Amino acid sequence: MSKAVILLSGGLDSTTVLAIAKSKGFKCYALSFDYGQKQLSELVSAKTIAKNFGVIEHRIMRVCLDDIGGSALTDPTLEVPKFDESNEIPITYVPARNTIFLSFALAWAEVLDSQSIFIGVNALDYSGYPDCRPEYIEAYETMANLATKQSVEGDKIQIHTPLINLTKAEIINQGRALGVDYSMTTTCYQANDKSEACGICDACVLRRNGFEQAGVSDPTYYQ
Amino acid sequence: MSKAVILLSGGLDSTTVLAIAKSKGFKCYALSFDYGQKQLSELVSAKTIAKNFGVIEHRIMRVCLDDIGGSALTDPTLEVPKFDESNEIPITYVPARNTIFLSFALAWAEVLDSQSIFIGVNALDYSGYPDCRPEYIEAYETMANLATKQSVEGDKIQIHTPLINLTKAEIINQGRALGVDYSMTTTCYQANDKSEACGICDACVLRRNGFEQAGVSDPTYYQ
Repeated sequence: MSKAVILLSGGLDSTTVLAIAKSKGFKCYALSFDYGQKQLSELVSAKTIAKNFGVIEHRIMRVCLDDIGGSALTDPTLEVPKFDESNEIPITYVPARNTIFLSFALAWAEVLDSQSIFIGVNALDYSGYPDCRPEYIEAYETMANLATKQSVEGDKIQIHTPLINLTKAEIINQGRALGVDYSMTTTCYQANDKSEACGICDACVLRRNGFEQAGVSDPTYYQ
Repeated sequence: MSKAVILLSGGLDSTTVLAIAKSKGFKCYALSFDYGQKQLSELVSAKTIAKNFGVIEHRIMRVCLDDIGGSALTDPTLEVPKFDESNEIPITYVPARNTIFLSFALAWAEVLDSQSIFIGVNALDYSGYPDCRPEYIEAYETMANLATKQSVEGDKIQIHTPLINLTKAEIINQGRALGVDYSMTTTCYQANDKSEACGICDACVLRRNGFEQAGVSDPTYYQ
């Protein structure tokens, strides 16, 4: 069995990714971040999920993206906007977030002697964040394979993105087929401390639509 | 004047890079990391240097590379080895360090609306770390230009590496021409809290040889 580092936010996508990695036989190491996000309750979900899936280890690392700011997810003076169908990148975009998260995963993977990193990025039912697109992930993987001692010594790093071309409904169906209990997950950008969702932000609307299109009842409690 | 984020460790190379960036007319924002390194005194040097160069802002961010381990620079159970001429990557290599540092610089640059990041990597008189090589930096820049909102909106990010093809002696000469006072810098991997250097680690030997080849007296106090 190979080891894999799984980026686990505690939301629908990353939980499905953990289920997929486990179903493929990986020994799973879950990595979450306390990055100053408003939706801190997602970390409570991440803990429950990691335990539920019996990961080998679950780490929650503190990274000070709130000191850097520039996003409605980390800056208390910026309001999380309602869902907007426009093609503009919304203010919930967090500067370089996936690049930072993947880089900590890369470091941990190297220490674990793992060549596999899983991330739940999706480029269909998503908010248009640049660091969720296939071309970004490919470029990250190329860079990662020049960055570390293990990669230059011949162990190729792979960034696994099993959801990248799926609709939200397909993600939900795949997760359900693997037995994922989505009531454990927190998706909302401004969920309160009981993990109750706002129902109107991008993340909530994409999730709600996904459950509807999958013909499955959404176990989320919307305020 | 354009803004630039300068990765500043407090050592000889990054201080020279700061001097170069300033001489090119950039408004300089210095970024240092408290990453659990044994040579914490380099951060004292970084503060002095940032002040001396009149940077617009100097940030020291805490990143928990000591929790990840895997390096003699962050793991108290691993001894910093003496200089070794072999071609093997030494145990002072820190997994994914430059990738993590550049990623925080990328985030800060985006918030500052800066398109320039300076890093003092060098691939001649160096320890063989993979994340100091030109091919790594090129791949990082390609990835960065797919990662952020500002880059996809047309503002190209540039990773400046003015030292990458210089010998240590050439770096010292360039810094001296710009008026750098190297007595402010701390290079040693295990400098004590007075910034006194061991004289025998990779970093010390490369520095000592550099000053010798440049025909300049090294202001470092070696224990």
